[in-house]
Amino acid sequence: MLSTANAPRTAPAALIDALRQRFGDRLSTALAVREQHGRDESPFDVAPPDAVVFCESTQDVADAVTLAAAHRVPVIPFGVGSSLEGHLLAVQGGVSLDLSRMNRVLRAEPENLTATLQPGVTRSQLNREVKDLGLFFPIDPGADASLGGMCATRASGTNAVRYGTMRENVLALEVVTASGQVIRTGTQARKSSAGYDLTRLMVGSEGTLGVITEITLKLHPLPESLAAAVCFFPDIASAVATTIQVIQMGVPIARCELLDVNAVRAVNNHDKLGLREAPMLLMEFHGSEAGVAEQTATVQEIAKDHGGEDFQWATTPEERTRLWTARHHAYLSALQMRPGCRAVTTDTCVPIARLAEMVVAAEDEARASGLPYFIVGHVGDGNFHIAYLLDPNLPGERDLAESLNERVVRRALAVGGTCTGEHGIGLHKQGFLIEETGEGAVAMMRAVKRALDPDNILNPGKIFAL
Amino acid sequence: MLSTANAPRTAPAALIDALRQRFGDRLSTALAVREQHGRDESPFDVAPPDAVVFCESTQDVADAVTLAAAHRVPVIPFGVGSSLEGHLLAVQGGVSLDLSRMNRVLRAEPENLTATLQPGVTRSQLNREVKDLGLFFPIDPGADASLGGMCATRASGTNAVRYGTMRENVLALEVVTASGQVIRTGTQARKSSAGYDLTRLMVGSEGTLGVITEITLKLHPLPESLAAAVCFFPDIASAVATTIQVIQMGVPIARCELLDVNAVRAVNNHDKLGLREAPMLLMEFHGSEAGVAEQTATVQEIAKDHGGEDFQWATTPEERTRLWTARHHAYLSALQMRPGCRAVTTDTCVPIARLAEMVVAAEDEARASGLPYFIVGHVGDGNFHIAYLLDPNLPGERDLAESLNERVVRRALAVGGTCTGEHGIGLHKQGFLIEETGEGAVAMMRAVKRALDPDNILNPGKIFAL
Repeated sequence: MLSTANAPRTAPAALIDALRQRFGDRLSTALAVREQHGRDESPFDVAPPDAVVFCESTQDVADAVTLAAAHRVPVIPFGVGSSLEGHLLAVQGGVSLDLSRMNRVLRAEPENLTATLQPGVTRSQLNREVKDLGLFFPIDPGADASLGGMCATRASGTNAVRYGTMRENVLALEVVTASGQVIRTGTQARKSSAGYDLTRLMVGSEGTLGVITEITLKLHPLPESLAAAVCFFPDIASAVATTIQVIQMGVPIARCELLDVNAVRAVNNHDKLGLREAPMLLMEFHGSEAGVAEQTATVQEIAKDHGGEDFQWATTPEERTRLWTARHHAYLSALQMRPGCRAVTTDTCVPIARLAEMVVAAEDEARASGLPYFIVGHVGDGNFHIAYLLDPNLPGERDLAESLNERVVRRALAVGGTCTGEHGIGLHKQGFLIEETGEGAVAMMRAVKRALDPDNILNPGKIFAL
Repeated sequence: MLSTANAPRTAPAALIDALRQRFGDRLSTALAVREQHGRDESPFDVAPPDAVVFCESTQDVADAVTLAAAHRVPVIPFGVGSSLEGHLLAVQGGVSLDLSRMNRVLRAEPENLTATLQPGVTRSQLNREVKDLGLFFPIDPGADASLGGMCATRASGTNAVRYGTMRENVLALEVVTASGQVIRTGTQARKSSAGYDLTRLMVGSEGTLGVITEITLKLHPLPESLAAAVCFFPDIASAVATTIQVIQMGVPIARCELLDVNAVRAVNNHDKLGLREAPMLLMEFHGSEAGVAEQTATVQEIAKDHGGEDFQWATTPEERTRLWTARHHAYLSALQMRPGCRAVTTDTCVPIARLAEMVVAAEDEARASGLPYFIVGHVGDGNFHIAYLLDPNLPGERDLAESLNERVVRRALAVGGTCTGEHGIGLHKQGFLIEETGEGAVAMMRAVKRALDPDNILNPGKIFAL
């Protein structure tokens, strides 16, 4: 079995017939639909699945997996397609399970600060639906990703510095296993010591251990007071040094985002913000009114010590939304700076004290390479992204970008960091995973995978080769 | 293999000889030593291992496991013996690995807010060693447990309401696998999406998936200001209702501990505290001076609305320590209220809004039963313990206590809670685990166990039967 585990396994006509019988016109084999489900935001070429099933319920998912399992054909869960690491590509063929119609918030329980929802709910939808309850869900990876996808990649983004990542905010899951069985992990309680932490095993498993069909999340009370500010710095090192000190002092800052001058220029062009074109921290503070005042005073002082300017405040909700929308657009805005380009994006995360040297070295090398690039970072976590914009028709540029990426990763690993803070391994970082954690740990991951998915049908070819 | 997986497997003379050759007088087969390693704080009878190895290094552990694995003989990691669920009992025979000599803090990195240490370090030792760096490790299960044991049971305790449990505070582990191989999980970075979350798989695995030999933890800056207060209530329901509202409002309270009148009486007797004998919340607030003042004002107001009295403050560090020491002694103090007794202790954790009804029902039933009992709770998490004090010579009392425990658990499960917030499954709650999470999830746990420990030598018989 293992010798063929990584070979393409085209869905046979018998499977397609069975799926059509079960799902009717919710099965599609149209090339346009398949191509749309065989790509994501990564720089990889499209790898379309053989068919797409539009699932509307847990039973749909269970039935689709059961049918695929009978033919040992891969299944690939699909949310909104915002992966940056090739998670959605059908590299071994198979059936894409489109979960975007499973988009209901099933229960919001303000009295318990929890919500239970289907995997196709997006983060912005969830926040719209719970806002009137005085609650919000903080994890915000930039893209308006599906919560199922955010579980699968262990997403984080802005706000994680204060509220944690998906790792900390998922309480329970319903999961369809490789045999089509429906299981539940976790409970509605905030903590538990009941057996293996299957919830955390599923979170970040990139669709390779089960298909997530229901999610219970922690919600948080909307802060009484909220302030957003930008601060410009003479150079990127000063901005990062400020961040490091803020974290070391334990200031409970809610968001602390770095944009380099190229990213600022991109969002200026795209969103007409008129920001000064200089390295910038975009920050948000949550708390009581007095608490927010205290936090901002502390951070302003630290910033000044590092050459930062006076904070510029987004005082109205509209201004705040405008700034954060611009931040969320940074990736797409920057791609437009080089029409037709694709991006190779790094995702290292390092112990906080080592962050400045990492960012500065990456910037120096990128500048020297001549490739267009930009830097954004969830710097409060020690996580930053440098994106190299390459012309897909010039193979030399792709190679150059990959070699720059490699150097960024190697430096991060050398100081005890990780090759991926939030995007996942996917297709792109499988070699780095082995370098980072060692053959022994990857062998343990493979053993878990083989135990839970012996025929290797769940999103095969991602995270590691079997 | 499976048919014999749960049978006792006495260490053969050849294994004892090999261990003696390798470890010399760090191997003991003396009955007193074996008995000391075959019990814990649970009400179970002692089940001594065949031998005890005092390990002093990762290599010691790896060698001991390798030798035991060659004979398919169980190994049971031992820290300080403070388990409440029978984790340390050699129910299938085997070798106890005493890790208490692996008690060095290897690195404290204040600049990164992390520490790396051996598993025999206790929480109080760690806090002593990092205090001068302006840091602390918040997880505090009451007992002065070893950090290895706290990882293995996914411990929490006071402070978890604000700082999370071991689940949230362990960054990386070194683990000896069932074959004696040394692997590493996680990195020093605060977050990562690099493959399966083996760290979280090991945390809470109760020694059944690997022996933890090194731990990297998050540390937290000592708060600028810190205040502890007690507040008395007319009844336990009012104290819990106060807690619920504090949590729902998002007040970042650091500790929020409930003691019922019996627990207060016990700590009064033991620690000469002179507290009023009434249901009590023992609280702690961390933050800036203004932040602490604000939090305490809010909580005092909520308490008053529920019939709580004026806060009594522990204003000096000495008074604070005295109060918390008394809280830490509550379990042992209460046992002394009935000389010679043993305790059956519940550990349910429920969604916060359901906590009051849970505590009140448990109290009513306990009172009606005639068994001595006391209640303490990390109520900010939705977690409380009711301990029934039983005469071990009266089997009827044990049965009564177990039936009371069962009713507490069933009620918790019915509202989406867990049978164990922090003590683990061990020997005691294996039936409850299946009720809680379902056969499907437990089958998945067993599949993981079989994949990582095919000969079932790692602390066999705990969490589930194979």
